Amino acid sequence: MRLQLVTWPDVEQYLKTSTGIIIPIGSTEQHGPNGLVGTDALTAEFIAHGVGEKTGALVAPTISVGMAQHHLGFPGSITLRPSTLIAVVRDNIQSLMRHGFTRFFFINGHGGNIATVTAAFSEIYAERSLQRGSNAPSVKCKLRNWWEGSGSRALSRDLYGNQEGSHATPSEVSLTFYMHPQTEKQVPMEPEVAPNGSFSDADDYRSTFPDGRIGSNPNLSTAAHGRRIYEMAVEEVARDYLAFVAR
Amino acid sequence: MRLQLVTWPDVEQYLKTSTGIIIPIGSTEQHGPNGLVGTDALTAEFIAHGVGEKTGALVAPTISVGMAQHHLGFPGSITLRPSTLIAVVRDNIQSLMRHGFTRFFFINGHGGNIATVTAAFSEIYAERSLQRGSNAPSVKCKLRNWWEGSGSRALSRDLYGNQEGSHATPSEVSLTFYMHPQTEKQVPMEPEVAPNGSFSDADDYRSTFPDGRIGSNPNLSTAAHGRRIYEMAVEEVARDYLAFVAR
Amino acid sequence: MRLQLVTWPDVEQYLKTSTGIIIPIGSTEQHGPNGLVGTDALTAEFIAHGVGEKTGALVAPTISVGMAQHHLGFPGSITLRPSTLIAVVRDNIQSLMRHGFTRFFFINGHGGNIATVTAAFSEIYAERSLQRGSNAPSVKCKLRNWWEGSGSRALSRDLYGNQEGSHATPSEVSLTFYMHPQTEKQVPMEPEVAPNGSFSDADDYRSTFPDGRIGSNPNLSTAAHGRRIYEMAVEEVARDYLAFVAR
Amino acid sequence: MRLQLVTWPDVEQYLKTSTGIIIPIGSTEQHGPNGLVGTDALTAEFIAHGVGEKTGALVAPTISVGMAQHHLGFPGSITLRPSTLIAVVRDNIQSLMRHGFTRFFFINGHGGNIATVTAAFSEIYAERSLQRGSNAPSVKCKLRNWWEGSGSRALSRDLYGNQEGSHATPSEVSLTFYMHPQTEKQVPMEPEVAPNGSFSDADDYRSTFPDGRIGSNPNLSTAAHGRRIYEMAVEEVARDYLAFVAR
Amino acid sequence: MRLQLVTWPDVEQYLKTSTGIIIPIGSTEQHGPNGLVGTDALTAEFIAHGVGEKTGALVAPTISVGMAQHHLGFPGSITLRPSTLIAVVRDNIQSLMRHGFTRFFFINGHGGNIATVTAAFSEIYAERSLQRGSNAPSVKCKLRNWWEGSGSRALSRDLYGNQEGSHATPSEVSLTFYMHPQTEKQVPMEPEVAPNGSFSDADDYRSTFPDGRIGSNPNLSTAAHGRRIYEMAVEEVARDYLAFVAR
Amino acid sequence: MRLQLVTWPDVEQYLKTSTGIIIPIGSTEQHGPNGLVGTDALTAEFIAHGVGEKTGALVAPTISVGMAQHHLGFPGSITLRPSTLIAVVRDNIQSLMRHGFTRFFFINGHGGNIATVTAAFSEIYAERSLQRGSNAPSVKCKLRNWWEGSGSRALSRDLYGNQEGSHATPSEVSLTFYMHPQTEKQVPMEPEVAPNGSFSDADDYRSTFPDGRIGSNPNLSTAAHGRRIYEMAVEEVARDYLAFVAR
Repeated sequence: MRLQLVTWPDVEQYLKTSTGIIIPIGSTEQHGPNGLVGTDALTAEFIAHGVGEKTGALVAPTISVGMAQHHLGFPGSITLRPSTLIAVVRDNIQSLMRHGFTRFFFINGHGGNIATVTAAFSEIYAERSLQRGSNAPSVKCKLRNWWEGSGSRALSRDLYGNQEGSHATPSEVSLTFYMHPQTEKQVPMEPEVAPNGSFSDADDYRSTFPDGRIGSNPNLSTAAHGRRIYEMAVEEVARDYLAFVAR
Repeated sequence: MRLQLVTWPDVEQYLKTSTGIIIPIGSTEQHGPNGLVGTDALTAEFIAHGVGEKTGALVAPTISVGMAQHHLGFPGSITLRPSTLIAVVRDNIQSLMRHGFTRFFFINGHGGNIATVTAAFSEIYAERSLQRGSNAPSVKCKLRNWWEGSGSRALSRDLYGNQEGSHATPSEVSLTFYMHPQTEKQVPMEPEVAPNGSFSDADDYRSTFPDGRIGSNPNLSTAAHGRRIYEMAVEEVARDYLAFVAR
Repeated sequence: MRLQLVTWPDVEQYLKTSTGIIIPIGSTEQHGPNGLVGTDALTAEFIAHGVGEKTGALVAPTISVGMAQHHLGFPGSITLRPSTLIAVVRDNIQSLMRHGFTRFFFINGHGGNIATVTAAFSEIYAERSLQRGSNAPSVKCKLRNWWEGSGSRALSRDLYGNQEGSHATPSEVSLTFYMHPQTEKQVPMEPEVAPNGSFSDADDYRSTFPDGRIGSNPNLSTAAHGRRIYEMAVEEVARDYLAFVAR
Repeated sequence: MRLQLVTWPDVEQYLKTSTGIIIPIGSTEQHGPNGLVGTDALTAEFIAHGVGEKTGALVAPTISVGMAQHHLGFPGSITLRPSTLIAVVRDNIQSLMRHGFTRFFFINGHGGNIATVTAAFSEIYAERSLQRGSNAPSVKCKLRNWWEGSGSRALSRDLYGNQEGSHATPSEVSLTFYMHPQTEKQVPMEPEVAPNGSFSDADDYRSTFPDGRIGSNPNLSTAAHGRRIYEMAVEEVARDYLAFVAR
Repeated sequence: MRLQLVTWPDVEQYLKTSTGIIIPIGSTEQHGPNGLVGTDALTAEFIAHGVGEKTGALVAPTISVGMAQHHLGFPGSITLRPSTLIAVVRDNIQSLMRHGFTRFFFINGHGGNIATVTAAFSEIYAERSLQRGSNAPSVKCKLRNWWEGSGSRALSRDLYGNQEGSHATPSEVSLTFYMHPQTEKQVPMEPEVAPNGSFSDADDYRSTFPDGRIGSNPNLSTAAHGRRIYEMAVEEVARDYLAFVAR
Repeated sequence: MRLQLVTWPDVEQYLKTSTGIIIPIGSTEQHGPNGLVGTDALTAEFIAHGVGEKTGALVAPTISVGMAQHHLGFPGSITLRPSTLIAVVRDNIQSLMRHGFTRFFFINGHGGNIATVTAAFSEIYAERSLQRGSNAPSVKCKLRNWWEGSGSRALSRDLYGNQEGSHATPSEVSLTFYMHPQTEKQVPMEPEVAPNGSFSDADDYRSTFPDGRIGSNPNLSTAAHGRRIYEMAVEEVARDYLAFVAR
């Protein structure tokens, strides 16, 4: 159930049976020579909608721009400063708390969001923690990277072995090919498998990873893989969502 | 051309011929008994994509949550505080400035965003204005409400006369019915045409407008109207975009 | 009744009969070759005091520096960043709420303040809207540009026709000549009527409007006009204030 | 020379001979049973205008609301949070730096502003200090309480001895009686001379100082005293201003 | 070499041979029935000083209060909000950048700091990333938890097996007993090994972990263990520091 | 009783008899040719621990980095922006308020902190002052410079006469020699007694005071003096602490 596609009386009805909600969060950033700039938001949203259908959970609009400062050396990348993203997460959650939601399950498509979103949760918790006997509602927030289930990890290992890498991975690119088949393409990449390494700011990133990939070979990606990856992720994330709201 | 669906080399190519970009911005808030919570983001995005196709402009991801504090009395509504939204707009623009974009055309679906987004533009301009001989690039930003063209106004007047109102209008609801035909429905509303008036905070809004509408009769909405409204808006907004980037 | 000129027991007394207060807000910015840098604050304050006398309303100190980033290309202009002005408006209102004031009527002398002050009102409302069952008082805020009444518009049209323009207008300059007759002067301006147009930051403004005026011919200004403009504005704004607090 | 009463070409001319400017800063807060709520802003502004006339210095608009959180227990008092006031001082100074001003002389009417304005100066300096080889202009800021000259201190001692106190002092009240003779009055006060002591927040202040005064007997105030106090302060502060800009 | 114990000419000298610096960061929070409130800051500082001696690295003052909102249910715990800690880390780094430091190695004693400090690094990097051709220096920051080396992990496994847990661990408590032998003590704990689990805010934490421990049995701690843990950590962290500055 | 060296049950016990706490605050900044970069934090902490022992007061961890923007021209100096330091002080106090502490006694080692910490106290008070009938606890905060007692002043006058100066004073340097005898040394300084004067930003400071001292001759410092200075300060500050918590 997508929040954007229902009416407020529908939400009022939903809250009678559940106070959980899913919030997809991604990023808008380069994904190498053949990966889409929207990969992280598109995949998080796609899987979130799948989980919503499977579990009946309400799915909020996607936060499409995340923390991607290191990608700014490549045209099209957009970042929120961490301090801005913290405010965005806080305002989303506080708005929904107002209506009675208490369980916030973020389905994440971008590793670069993890630290900042986790800090944002602490910022929210801190407001209540700092007041003895606060009458603010007690809430729980969780960030779930869509690729983290054991099944998802096994599948990517089976499909791509040590060519999965950590940015512009064939897994995420396959997912976007499955979603948008017209974007499927292979392009020459040199070297075939990108180098690994660490990075700090955008210049540093671009000089270390000149075409944007880290450790990956996204030319292995196919829409058919994407479908399998999608189904596995939806199944595993749905299970985690249900466990989260059941606590 | 949707930024999310292209690669960074595509963006690099695009920048050789244009430094303009479209950013859809909407809201996530109640739209009366039969209007969708996502109306303002969905319509802004839909029209932005149409304008992008017509003009070849690049379209950034939609800012789906805007300034909607007054709607928080109705479940499902989400707001950013104005100060948060200012930071979001600033970070989006500054990221894109980094790549060489200089013309930012926001297609807006929500009246409640106008003041804050306009203030955000001034916040960005101010950084450069406060430094004599700044070497920051000079940029221009514009907010365009999709419904403001003379053709759009005439069309809504023809279709709905004085039952258009100002929130949960039959025009915007028709647009969403056109986009998502499965959501089209009429529901009993009392009175048929909602009252007009002003409001301050969420409690005040809800007590003045108990079902969320202002001055409108969204039971007049149809998907067929939506199509005409869409085509008119795309045509007029595209014209304005082209004039804006030509300056 | 000017807040600055009364004692706290006077304010305590006032609050027994009214919870409304007027806050003049202007700007400190160039007003063309013969207009005063203080025009927008001086006029807002002058009319506010007139309205205060006519209605018995309490008038707070003037916010003399507003949002004027676009005027910084001209010496003497001062701006608050929008984020700063939002904080200023918020602190003024929250202080007065503490005493029991609930109706805040801003008399504005500067178009550039409108978006930011409106955003500030939303920032204040949002704090209450975000908390279900908040026990914070419900307040209402209104921004009234002194020149917006139908009588004021008709008068400026009669006096100046299409030479009124939108910055350094003969209306506002006449008002300051009426207040400070020693400042009345005509100076050569070329062209006689300034160009119209849009602007973004300070450099852009100055290159488009080299002497600071927009669309106006302030050499038409006289102190005698100023008196008529003043009287009309006070009458119309006073009427609006009374309607506002009566709601 | 009041900035509000001149044109931008006048300021341009002024900057050819001086880069100094005076900024009056006061407060809006209770001043006991017969003192005006505007005392601190009115007196700072009055003396600043006197200094401006004597020295030819440009005088910016008065910052009329300062840091007065401890007075909020009395109706009519308004405060900026320290963080807001820091932003206000920063924006004023940065705007004027843009035009070439380098010496900022704040004439202060309120002890409660000292810490925060001093912190604001450091916030401004810090921006330049944090960048090695910054090309931002080097500026100097000074806060001068109008009552601090040796002559002013001697005069208040002569006039009021140990009944001067530290809030709602007969000196400052006399000044306002001189400026606004119609406000001169004595009212019963019990005890005649208010108690001394320290305070923290507004409730604490009001319970310690029930009528708002600290250590003072403002029934000694007269307009005639006010004139002498004014003349002494203008003379001493003018001397300090000239020394400041000469450095 | 402790920064606090040298003079500025010593630092000037140091910068001729190295631009790396170590910053210890800990927390001030409950550590169960027999663990010290200062555990995380004391251990980080102790190991940092050891690493400084071994490598000749300069060691900055310890950030003793970190992000510990979840511990506020226990007296003595102090937290910085994440947004505050981000500002603290930023100001420390920017100050040191001014002098020419470019490698910032944080030795961390508290898991709750990881997300926020990582976000702070991104906030710093973002400022440079957002400006094309920025002339700000390129810097690298790293957070190293003292317990993360393979030798440290093996040692704690050998000493405590599955009674190490994740808060108020026997490892960290042993370290503090080694540093401050007079604090060594065993106290009755029920159950012997604390439960495991997750937590959100302070109330939630305290109700899940009533005596403050998570999964640990700190009654196994001894000063003798502490010495072995210290030596292992210093050796491994020193190696990592040298590798970091060598890059 | 050092907070870092006790357990949470110890703090719980302490709160049954006292709600006062001591917070040492210093700075990390150059202290001339032979003074330690950590002087202000080391001395504040040292005296705070002495006061804690004498009075039984709990002593929180030291805030080692303060407001020192003007020292950034000398390697090793670190500053917090005033706005950051305000947030740090606020978070420390609000955390401790949560546990029931109500009297916050800051022992300060650095003149540059005074304005900002005082502003921070007002920021905290303001939150309560702005809400009529707030149910937040009423607290009191005090900043005590360790050198301000009449005995301390007399002692430094006796020992150093007019060579005490105001930065890198022989008094504070003696204190650090007493604490860390291995750091005691004399170095050539030219002139023997440093010049006096004022300063604004870091460049201005360094050009006015080339070796970092202001008005002082720290070559007079000895560890033996340090002991006498320490004992006097502890005695006087302890007396002030007891008076503060007794109010």
